[in-house]
Amino acid sequence: MAVELYDLTVPVFIRGLNNLSALLDKAVAHAGEAGADALLQNRLIEDMNPLVKQVQVACDSAKLCVARLSGVDAPVNEDTEATVPELKARIASTLAWLASVPRETVDGQEGKDIVLKFPGGEWPFKGAAYVIGFAQPNFYFHLTTAYGLLRQAGVPIGKRDFIGG
Amino acid sequence: MAVELYDLTVPVFIRGLNNLSALLDKAVAHAGEAGADALLQNRLIEDMNPLVKQVQVACDSAKLCVARLSGVDAPVNEDTEATVPELKARIASTLAWLASVPRETVDGQEGKDIVLKFPGGEWPFKGAAYVIGFAQPNFYFHLTTAYGLLRQAGVPIGKRDFIGG
Repeated sequence: MAVELYDLTVPVFIRGLNNLSALLDKAVAHAGEAGADALLQNRLIEDMNPLVKQVQVACDSAKLCVARLSGVDAPVNEDTEATVPELKARIASTLAWLASVPRETVDGQEGKDIVLKFPGGEWPFKGAAYVIGFAQPNFYFHLTTAYGLLRQAGVPIGKRDFIGG
Repeated sequence: MAVELYDLTVPVFIRGLNNLSALLDKAVAHAGEAGADALLQNRLIEDMNPLVKQVQVACDSAKLCVARLSGVDAPVNEDTEATVPELKARIASTLAWLASVPRETVDGQEGKDIVLKFPGGEWPFKGAAYVIGFAQPNFYFHLTTAYGLLRQAGVPIGKRDFIGG
């Protein structure tokens, strides 16, 4: 039986990013358009990335995971978003690309060599370990941090908004 | 090929809880024993659970997921921890129990009926969808929120401490 790699990635990221987009809608409903745009600069602490970057990286972590597994080229994003509508468009374009990646390019890549390059060195993975040990925790890290920043700012959201779908 | 349910749960939770325990060690190294104990009451906002509860729920979300899948009875915890050493002992006992659950009780439970009961109603799942759509995001939610609270308090940690292993 077991679980196919596609089901551990594409629909997981699609659900999470849809939830993130809905969280941004709740920020606008709570704080107004200008107020929600201002929240995008909130950080948990000065030397940590602000909300806008958490959303951008959530999108990229999903996109890059699926691109690395599938071999399908991902769109390039310039990280120029500065408003909620721009971020929602970024999420929407990421969702559309994720949905376009054929299942058969992802399934079966459990043993694929994937090497992440960091300033400090390289991190080699096999496909399944990369998804389970890096891509999933990394995606949820940025999603939860975005949630926490909105929650801390008083946006009326609960864990059901985070889990969603 | 695909991925077995055990590999999506037990080692994922073991790695995450080991990382969480190490984050608490860094809190003690940064703030001292009494200082780190005081951090356990930190919250992102007044009506959200404090750090101590985030750690307790991270332990429980791992434990309950594996108990529901495997049918192995999980230990009961009273949530009385108030210090870092007590929380680390809670994590350690959860880790020991997780490691004791036989792989063959978890693998193959993709289609098992699992019903979560909430004050507002019931949430029915099949085993695989429960792991992917609830247990994993819920576990990472509490792990990331604990990380964020420590990071916000100035504990010198980075995402590598969160991803770990």
